[in-house]
Amino acid sequence: MKIGILGYGNLGRGVECAVKQNSDMELTCVFTRRDPSTVKILTDTAKVYNVDEILNHKDEVDVLIICGGSATDLPEMTPKYAKDFNVIDSFDTHATIPQHFANVDAAAKAGDHIAMISVGWDPGMFSLNRVYANAILNDGADYTFWGRGVSQGHSDAIRRIDGVQDARQYTVPVPAALESVRNGEMPELTTRQKHTRECYVVAKDGADKAKIEKEIKEMPNYFADYDTTVTFISQEELDKNHKGIPHGGCVIRTGKTGWNLENTHVIEYNLKLDSNPEFTTSVLIAYARAAFRMYKEGQRGCKTVLDVAPAYLCQQSGEELRAHML
Amino acid sequence: MKIGILGYGNLGRGVECAVKQNSDMELTCVFTRRDPSTVKILTDTAKVYNVDEILNHKDEVDVLIICGGSATDLPEMTPKYAKDFNVIDSFDTHATIPQHFANVDAAAKAGDHIAMISVGWDPGMFSLNRVYANAILNDGADYTFWGRGVSQGHSDAIRRIDGVQDARQYTVPVPAALESVRNGEMPELTTRQKHTRECYVVAKDGADKAKIEKEIKEMPNYFADYDTTVTFISQEELDKNHKGIPHGGCVIRTGKTGWNLENTHVIEYNLKLDSNPEFTTSVLIAYARAAFRMYKEGQRGCKTVLDVAPAYLCQQSGEELRAHML
Repeated sequence: MKIGILGYGNLGRGVECAVKQNSDMELTCVFTRRDPSTVKILTDTAKVYNVDEILNHKDEVDVLIICGGSATDLPEMTPKYAKDFNVIDSFDTHATIPQHFANVDAAAKAGDHIAMISVGWDPGMFSLNRVYANAILNDGADYTFWGRGVSQGHSDAIRRIDGVQDARQYTVPVPAALESVRNGEMPELTTRQKHTRECYVVAKDGADKAKIEKEIKEMPNYFADYDTTVTFISQEELDKNHKGIPHGGCVIRTGKTGWNLENTHVIEYNLKLDSNPEFTTSVLIAYARAAFRMYKEGQRGCKTVLDVAPAYLCQQSGEELRAHML
Repeated sequence: MKIGILGYGNLGRGVECAVKQNSDMELTCVFTRRDPSTVKILTDTAKVYNVDEILNHKDEVDVLIICGGSATDLPEMTPKYAKDFNVIDSFDTHATIPQHFANVDAAAKAGDHIAMISVGWDPGMFSLNRVYANAILNDGADYTFWGRGVSQGHSDAIRRIDGVQDARQYTVPVPAALESVRNGEMPELTTRQKHTRECYVVAKDGADKAKIEKEIKEMPNYFADYDTTVTFISQEELDKNHKGIPHGGCVIRTGKTGWNLENTHVIEYNLKLDSNPEFTTSVLIAYARAAFRMYKEGQRGCKTVLDVAPAYLCQQSGEELRAHML
């Protein structure tokens, strides 16, 4: 399979690494909005082109992995390129997935291609686990916890505050809430009861730290509904201890079975990730394989992880999977 | 959907309870090898028939759930009934799945039906999670832990020992092994390092307890390779504290990503089940729904959980799933 990458940031680099780990795949092209001569990639055999030339390279790409942001890039790019390529993205704005799906579906069908959206871990593997667990345990309750991990969006929000030089925000599940859920107690939890937010902030010289801390803690949507701690550290300490982008979390469903619902079951799917973008792109690559197989079988239009039978994701044949993995 | 049950033991009763929890399903028939007048079921609206009459009731069943043992029942029954019904079973002898698949596939295709085998939690949900995790993390290691839970097979093996009146065996993961795996250390673990076995035994009056304990601990395959503890208790205590059939366990894959494999990830799927058969049958029911949908779309032959797109398992439409679960 020939893989193309559109957009070479954290995600694009992650795709490049993941392709290297999959012997049935080859990275052929990286398309960038920058001047290609300024973009240095890791793969000797792949070419870097400006995105304006992308249609000249249709034959070099079986699946194009679109590595853009969900706010403005993907809503425009995924439908646009689904006309000429099999595409896959990690669109993660849950509320607008139906609209994005409709746009991409129309474009992919018009271009006789397959497209797969919202692939990653949430949406993605977490969605799958919500669906499986709900299908099995009809009477129950769902819980999703994120962290401990870095929220890029919340870190950015802190960096936009006047007087802040740099910042890193960790989302942390509340241990007591997790324990109650895992015990099958089916608690009703408020936002504040589920997660805390830890902020590590580098203030500019002479900045008013008390004012920064107040501004963070009272920021609506981002921090006001949480127990938030703010710790001021030096740039050196942030660079040394907080440069990674770990993340993770868990999806838990607890439910009842039995003629009188007398038995309780707990299903948990748990991720601990050293690198959020690299895990996301490892998922993307597995679904790129599935997309290309489904395309070759004649499937067209927009799909999500919910539409993909697990066997499509693996290099092994159905026979090998049944013998060794079932 | 009209559901039929073949075999009314723990699993059959579990299917009956699960059908009650799913509003799009109805239990129509229970087929038994016993005299039907001696089999009392819970569902007023369903009929009990002798299995010899089963072909007279083909029109009353959309999917027949075969609730038999993997040792002798299912290898014979599932191919036999796949000719005349859409069938589903929980065949769990991992080593002979390929042979069972081939037999059932031929029968189902000859009869123009769909069949789904090895549905439950292991094989079943654990298999799915092995496949997903392997597709995502190409460089890594797999671990499966079972328990803490009751092993029916091991309990039976103890009960066959001379002088034993009753017994219950729990399989228990070794905490240090679990912790090492969860830390991403990728240990190589022997059988003994992964699980211990706890046996609660009721001895007959005058039986030689030391001899029973020795016989248990030295039993090849079942106990000899494990650290096994034997505790003698009274029948009353066993009935009071050990009558449940809880089980569970976890599938963990840890793996590396990055250009130089510098980042570690841990994926864990974990089950804590009050009732092993009721959870198994809740999975069976979800896959019965999928099987019937796939049948109506024209799919025939034998399938496993690896061939089923998650969206088929749920009552909700793809649109609803995308809006609320993705």
